[in-house]
Amino acid sequence: MTTVDVAAWLDKVRRERPLVHNITNLVVTNVAANGLLAIGASPVMAYAKQEVADMARIAGALALNMGTLDEDVVEAMRIAGQAANAAGVPVVFDPVGVGATPYRNEVAERLTGELQLAILRGNAGEIGVLLGAGGEVKGVDSQGAASGLPEAMRRYASAHGCCVIATGPTDYVTDGERVWALSNGHPLMAAITGSGCVATAILGAFAAAAGRGQDAAAYAEAAVAALTCYNVAGELAADKAQGPGTFQAALFDALYHLDGAYVSEVAKIEVLPA
Amino acid sequence: MTTVDVAAWLDKVRRERPLVHNITNLVVTNVAANGLLAIGASPVMAYAKQEVADMARIAGALALNMGTLDEDVVEAMRIAGQAANAAGVPVVFDPVGVGATPYRNEVAERLTGELQLAILRGNAGEIGVLLGAGGEVKGVDSQGAASGLPEAMRRYASAHGCCVIATGPTDYVTDGERVWALSNGHPLMAAITGSGCVATAILGAFAAAAGRGQDAAAYAEAAVAALTCYNVAGELAADKAQGPGTFQAALFDALYHLDGAYVSEVAKIEVLPA
Amino acid sequence: MTTVDVAAWLDKVRRERPLVHNITNLVVTNVAANGLLAIGASPVMAYAKQEVADMARIAGALALNMGTLDEDVVEAMRIAGQAANAAGVPVVFDPVGVGATPYRNEVAERLTGELQLAILRGNAGEIGVLLGAGGEVKGVDSQGAASGLPEAMRRYASAHGCCVIATGPTDYVTDGERVWALSNGHPLMAAITGSGCVATAILGAFAAAAGRGQDAAAYAEAAVAALTCYNVAGELAADKAQGPGTFQAALFDALYHLDGAYVSEVAKIEVLPA
Repeated sequence: MTTVDVAAWLDKVRRERPLVHNITNLVVTNVAANGLLAIGASPVMAYAKQEVADMARIAGALALNMGTLDEDVVEAMRIAGQAANAAGVPVVFDPVGVGATPYRNEVAERLTGELQLAILRGNAGEIGVLLGAGGEVKGVDSQGAASGLPEAMRRYASAHGCCVIATGPTDYVTDGERVWALSNGHPLMAAITGSGCVATAILGAFAAAAGRGQDAAAYAEAAVAALTCYNVAGELAADKAQGPGTFQAALFDALYHLDGAYVSEVAKIEVLPA
Repeated sequence: MTTVDVAAWLDKVRRERPLVHNITNLVVTNVAANGLLAIGASPVMAYAKQEVADMARIAGALALNMGTLDEDVVEAMRIAGQAANAAGVPVVFDPVGVGATPYRNEVAERLTGELQLAILRGNAGEIGVLLGAGGEVKGVDSQGAASGLPEAMRRYASAHGCCVIATGPTDYVTDGERVWALSNGHPLMAAITGSGCVATAILGAFAAAAGRGQDAAAYAEAAVAALTCYNVAGELAADKAQGPGTFQAALFDALYHLDGAYVSEVAKIEVLPA
Repeated sequence: MTTVDVAAWLDKVRRERPLVHNITNLVVTNVAANGLLAIGASPVMAYAKQEVADMARIAGALALNMGTLDEDVVEAMRIAGQAANAAGVPVVFDPVGVGATPYRNEVAERLTGELQLAILRGNAGEIGVLLGAGGEVKGVDSQGAASGLPEAMRRYASAHGCCVIATGPTDYVTDGERVWALSNGHPLMAAITGSGCVATAILGAFAAAAGRGQDAAAYAEAAVAALTCYNVAGELAADKAQGPGTFQAALFDALYHLDGAYVSEVAKIEVLPA
């Protein structure tokens, strides 16, 4: 039995059509926007220092992704993040490729130090590196997780008052108390670029549906719903696909037509024993 | 009966294969280029201050889109726009997200003030805001148009000597005298990101086919043809699609195979009474 | 009879899953990453001056593409290229649009002058312009090659100790001694944007499989294998496609499922007489 009503969360996103402000990388701008449109949210990409604070304040959520960072983008993330924090707008942060270069490590530390995150999401290698729990990163690909990762995530989440997520064949989500293990999804999701980045954007949409100024528990429940919806869409898309190219198109189709009752029925959500 | 020979315009674009210089946003660079290739034009994206004037001068049209603006991009737009103006190269401007932040309002005013546009195109919310006619924008999505929008557009077009376009379920096009209402298209066009931005790029291709140094009447007729072609391609693509992902792919297929005679046959072009 | 074992090269790429560091243009970041994933490599895009040297040093190859250049990107290419050179990491350079503006000419000369390239790849117009052998470029599209291009390429490759490639309906590859003519492929490859840029990225993957510090002969053989794989994937994709949109998706599917034995069987690789 799951305590997260996935269908109700999906329905709330579609009814509210939240504006998600993305400061994301150059590889995934298009697919992140299309993923948000397909699930029923309203995406906006804005990077200029002159406007990111204004945009973050009117958004339902702010999604930051450092996949192709430079100093201007990092500064825009900081400005937007502080405006979002001041307004209670939930901030989702994706430390893409942390562990690959000293600069990425430094930026990830700077942003996690300066901003109050609602959700921190990376692949298992990235989260392991960022939390000092082990794990390895090659470029932007995870090379495997540390064995004690879920417990290290729980401790970090508890200390920082945010939801922490490591995605992979199994996704782990924690609010600092509970740890969920989510096992829907399909291997083709790792065969297209930006699969994790689209997850980050969609986490923004569900965090927006949770509302402003919520606690880690609420954002974690929204995250469990978001990832389960996304992963089930991946399963449905894989049924239609002949490879990663047709899978990408089918994934947007599946998100667009996703039926909440069906997702609830096939959801594989487990709460790990404390 | 329509006075715009859509098939002849499409044929002219394909025969001349005009070079369209795009300074566009980070979300749609790929789809704008693919849309131009599919309709039979030759796209180039160039942003560096060192080359935008040279590129704009050799282009058939310059398409400016402020979807993900920053000061460097705005300065490049200004330089390219002035070079295009000096050479008579038609300039198409898409004020994406105007109304969402003060910075976007300021940039849109600056560019419309400094450049002579051939075509100004936005969604109904954006055009309403920019013309001071009402309308609302959330992020980059229109939240509905003002009731008197077509007449406000006609007055603005007449005062500024350019073609003004507001797209939506019905597209309005005016040269300051006539106002056309175009009602081809399909709702799935609003379910993919960059649908309007691709329209802007394709408007550039048709404006290039109209030629350099033409008046608003000529560019408006090119625009009626461009939007009708694009909207009919959207209808054809929707027939093949299972959702927004397969629709995106089918849209490029449809543009590539578009038959001018068929478009003329199914075109829904109406001239509004003055 | 071919001296290049295409199937063995493809197998080596898939076994080693090399990290390819791309500094590429804003139009093709997504498709370049997806092309690399589909063929079995690991893509990373990194642009910040603070990290490009670190990233290039740990990569199997560095792929530079000046499609949407500006001074920051050019400086990042120079830093990354010098780090790659120092570590023996093969550098692939794609002078997109050289010949279209003086700035592009200047940058292409600067980078080819300062860096030791493993592979220089462009379309026939670009390579003709860059080598001073004639040829014409409109925006970023080749307008036809000079008649003596393969011989001019051979001389340049010999003088500079690198592999030179001009792609088109026939691809020419030379190591300064031998000149190969490759004639697989399909016209739809020219109907999507970034087809050449994806080729450049995939050349990076195969150059990485050749290894660090190799000579032009080894990189040229890797290149013959890379382009033949890519072109045969294009043929397979065209069989499934209804136009350029579905072709793009089918191309990733075909790269993902590509069978080395089949590629070897249908390969059209010819060594031109000296």
